[in-house]
Amino acid sequence: MKMEKNEGRGKKRQRIRERHCYLMIVAYDGSGFNGWQAQQDSGRTVQEELTRVARAVFKQEIKMEGSGRTDAGVHATGQAVSFTIEGRLRPDKIQRVLNHSLPGDIRVLYVEEKTEGFHARYDALGKTYLYKIKRCKEVNVFDSRYFHYVAKPLDVGRMREAANYFEGTHDFENFSASNHGKKSTVRTIDEISIIEDEECVEIKVSGGGFLWKMVRMISQTLIDAGTGAIEPSEVKKLFHSKGRRKEAAPACGLYLHEVRYEA
Amino acid sequence: MKMEKNEGRGKKRQRIRERHCYLMIVAYDGSGFNGWQAQQDSGRTVQEELTRVARAVFKQEIKMEGSGRTDAGVHATGQAVSFTIEGRLRPDKIQRVLNHSLPGDIRVLYVEEKTEGFHARYDALGKTYLYKIKRCKEVNVFDSRYFHYVAKPLDVGRMREAANYFEGTHDFENFSASNHGKKSTVRTIDEISIIEDEECVEIKVSGGGFLWKMVRMISQTLIDAGTGAIEPSEVKKLFHSKGRRKEAAPACGLYLHEVRYEA
Repeated sequence: MKMEKNEGRGKKRQRIRERHCYLMIVAYDGSGFNGWQAQQDSGRTVQEELTRVARAVFKQEIKMEGSGRTDAGVHATGQAVSFTIEGRLRPDKIQRVLNHSLPGDIRVLYVEEKTEGFHARYDALGKTYLYKIKRCKEVNVFDSRYFHYVAKPLDVGRMREAANYFEGTHDFENFSASNHGKKSTVRTIDEISIIEDEECVEIKVSGGGFLWKMVRMISQTLIDAGTGAIEPSEVKKLFHSKGRRKEAAPACGLYLHEVRYEA
Repeated sequence: MKMEKNEGRGKKRQRIRERHCYLMIVAYDGSGFNGWQAQQDSGRTVQEELTRVARAVFKQEIKMEGSGRTDAGVHATGQAVSFTIEGRLRPDKIQRVLNHSLPGDIRVLYVEEKTEGFHARYDALGKTYLYKIKRCKEVNVFDSRYFHYVAKPLDVGRMREAANYFEGTHDFENFSASNHGKKSTVRTIDEISIIEDEECVEIKVSGGGFLWKMVRMISQTLIDAGTGAIEPSEVKKLFHSKGRRKEAAPACGLYLHEVRYEA
């Protein structure tokens, strides 16, 4: 009997210690954060807030891994975050208890359990970003954190023409910030679609992976084509010209919209 | 001839030195400010930003006087601001040049010239505030700075019943923060109206003047009546009970909507 009891306890302990891996989809208003990545003396970051709350709630060391960084002021409607905890919790409970303690500018939208070893960054197959433009001179103070205001008229036909040159596999060196920290600067963009209405223009960029500031530099180039500052066909040359694009569209318009994984 | 010339110059100088007084209507997203009032070591404030930009643009000492303070996180869709400058400028030009240099979370909506001595605070006849509530459990990260989320069901009929007790002239001592700095705590509320739809409840409070945190304490009391935490008729007693209301509804829901002056 005694032995059996001990065995039972051992099993229970083992079960508690089992590590379980989860994927969360997270939204945040980037305007109150100095980006995703926790850094020393960097001000408030999304990764730190999530980690702080998760450690307090689950009472264990937890590391929150994002699918990638977002810069200060960049928003997310679908950032993917993975983490491992000791013990198993129901995904809906994880979502509920985290949201209960998180500040209002970060929300967990969805949680699912993944097989051990899953990593939001290394397992990502691709991402979609949105870039939101308000075509208006008069800035609404309650929108200025969430749109890039462009006062000049935008010809979306010209923007679409320019966008064609970005689709496919290219060396995006000239459309990346200098210290991107990647060996290869070749990336594939699957699709750029642009939708418009009277008030807004929204650029949707999907691809396998992106260099630092790449989406914002592409967006600025499309805006330049739209306002007439450059010809759409010039994009072709920009890939091969010496020197990077210097202008990136402002962070406030950018949203990390979706990260794709194997089903 | 010489004398005439000098006279002419003198006149011109005099005209330039004439002081002109202006009233501006200003909107701001309060979530990025530590309130209206410039204070030492207080972080970013609306008054400081406006003053800094106006001094740079008009190249003279300018003091921006608001109709009153707003707390950190409180928004304005119609803050009134007065200032005096040497020389005369067209109101639409003042608006244009200030907006050109102001950050996106402050906008000048309107400018008009007033007679000398006009003061946004001392000449104000009354004000209207809005308090915006989202009746929802799930927080949208892009709304959390602009609404107070109330998850419990709100009975707006009960809120309206409670609101009746606030209308008229009362001693609002119990509905003010302790260090309000005013001698008399008697104030008059002209009207409280509450509109609702499926998603939102909006409390509109108009009155001659307000004590510190008064609108937020009234709003919290109306919310308490709406959720059933108190009976609407208890408001009557709250005016006379010992001790102030401790709970003020959060700053994020409050908007300074309008300041009234003599036509």
